Amino acid sequence: MLDLPVAVVDSGFMRGIDFDQPGPPGVLTWREMTLAEPSPSDVVIDVHAAGISNIDLLQRDGRYPVPTGAPHVLGLECAGTISWVGDRVIGWSKSDRVCALLDGGGYAEQAVVPGRQLLPVPGGLDFPRAAALPEAACTVYANLTLKAHLRAGQWVLVHGGGSGIGAMAIQWAKASGARVITTVGSHTALARVIRLGADVALNFRTDDFVTRALDATDGRGVDAILDTAGAPYLRANVECLGPDGHLVVIGGTLAPAELDLGLLFGKRASVAATSLRSRPPDQKAAIVARVREYMWPLIERGVIAPVVDTVLPMPLAAEAHEFLHSGRAFGKVVLVTR
Amino acid sequence: MLDLPVAVVDSGFMRGIDFDQPGPPGVLTWREMTLAEPSPSDVVIDVHAAGISNIDLLQRDGRYPVPTGAPHVLGLECAGTISWVGDRVIGWSKSDRVCALLDGGGYAEQAVVPGRQLLPVPGGLDFPRAAALPEAACTVYANLTLKAHLRAGQWVLVHGGGSGIGAMAIQWAKASGARVITTVGSHTALARVIRLGADVALNFRTDDFVTRALDATDGRGVDAILDTAGAPYLRANVECLGPDGHLVVIGGTLAPAELDLGLLFGKRASVAATSLRSRPPDQKAAIVARVREYMWPLIERGVIAPVVDTVLPMPLAAEAHEFLHSGRAFGKVVLVTR
Repeated sequence: MLDLPVAVVDSGFMRGIDFDQPGPPGVLTWREMTLAEPSPSDVVIDVHAAGISNIDLLQRDGRYPVPTGAPHVLGLECAGTISWVGDRVIGWSKSDRVCALLDGGGYAEQAVVPGRQLLPVPGGLDFPRAAALPEAACTVYANLTLKAHLRAGQWVLVHGGGSGIGAMAIQWAKASGARVITTVGSHTALARVIRLGADVALNFRTDDFVTRALDATDGRGVDAILDTAGAPYLRANVECLGPDGHLVVIGGTLAPAELDLGLLFGKRASVAATSLRSRPPDQKAAIVARVREYMWPLIERGVIAPVVDTVLPMPLAAEAHEFLHSGRAFGKVVLVTR
Repeated sequence: MLDLPVAVVDSGFMRGIDFDQPGPPGVLTWREMTLAEPSPSDVVIDVHAAGISNIDLLQRDGRYPVPTGAPHVLGLECAGTISWVGDRVIGWSKSDRVCALLDGGGYAEQAVVPGRQLLPVPGGLDFPRAAALPEAACTVYANLTLKAHLRAGQWVLVHGGGSGIGAMAIQWAKASGARVITTVGSHTALARVIRLGADVALNFRTDDFVTRALDATDGRGVDAILDTAGAPYLRANVECLGPDGHLVVIGGTLAPAELDLGLLFGKRASVAATSLRSRPPDQKAAIVARVREYMWPLIERGVIAPVVDTVLPMPLAAEAHEFLHSGRAFGKVVLVTR
């Protein structure tokens, strides 16, 4: 029904990373696949680079429920050039250099994406760095700013400051005028998060983050926490919160855990658990629009920079997953198609 | 240091309800007491009527920690006329008919209150009805609107629809264009909450609120919950929430309870526990200002009405507490000084 250009109609020949059964990284295979049919509100991107998210690892492992209607192919962010534009897409043209927040499908030579989830490649960045931005930037903005209302002068605790999301959270919080406490898993990462702007950094393997967070805030507690541990940290995180504080859980062990309502009540605090991927299209579009308005100018000016540890050819996705899973990466791991 | 008029300086002779040790209602005694010294940003009110809150019962019982600096005397809301105005108070004059959100001290012939916590008596209301408004209106606005972001078209579950706060929550939610499910504790209260506008009412003693809330919303769940039960309802409340839903716990059993982070994550939902009384002065002033702007016009027009069950002379505060504790009141119980 759609008037697709020949190049897209012929795209049955594109290649990407696929897997038949969930499992370890080895299930990932580079092979021919078919591009999903774009709607008039979509664009098609010739993918040059795709960022890897922790969700991709969980999904490969069969531990992340794919939202209804989302592509089966992995990959929540990519960068490349637009090769086709739907009739109802406004503001974008063929050959534009873009990056995008995807509903899935980034690990392939072409990707279909709603026009409202596109962002321009910030000036001066190459495709691999641009591909490392959308999911981290949108996650951080949606949770620290829209959910936890973090603002200048406040304290935030960022768990996993060495992850792609953590590195973005540290930079965005500092750019917003907040002060940052962050946890990392290795000695070398400590120096790196300090260079990104963290005011206090600690190794969660050897250091008690509750004590450090309360010390740093003169016993008052932090205003916001971005958490990727879930149940095992719930009690300690609530202990770290200050008056009117917000804990936002975005990953980790999403299981039952004890919440002390009395402690929460005494602080007038809140606990939210949320994900970017499951949000409906209107919410994603609204987040992307705000990220473009408030974060993109800072990325254009170099105040905030994507943190990319490693770039690998897309056919080596299994190795990339192994490396990210090892915890040795600092920042994002990115796949490139060429 | 303050240039107080003689009438206030002489107010050592005022009477009020006091108690020496926490305990059952019988500890409450009507006797002479001293008015707290007002600051230049305070006014003094000649109290005609004081609303009773559930917090008063807990405080009398020794089960509510009084915030530092708050008056020892019970009473979080009152109505009367202004008898003295501090130099730094703007917009209020001696003899103005007012009601007020108090930090405490309502159960007395005079009360000291920050000028920013005053509201005009809405046209046509007598003092007992006006005294039933401030704490309920501010609690409902702060939690349903500011915290849970309830808006037109959404569903809210109001626990305890027959309480003073519950009756206000039903009316405000309906005035905001939301749909209301509410729980009550008796058959007679069912009809009354329906008359207040509730779309679905159920008796929590005989009916399962999770089933009813999911049925009413076609399985989707509610957008907001105003809860006064705490720990015993935590799991069921989270089951009732729909996508992006907010649970706000404002009372009840504030103890550790199991929170299913996976369930919360799947709904992108949040749990907050909060109180109005413990908020710092700037927050209280901001809430009162918004209540005056958004709720007061509806009260002036009679769209929202205070729900007062019983008015008793203030010296009978013990009997009033007994009656409120019995659960037989529908709406507020109010004390009057004359």
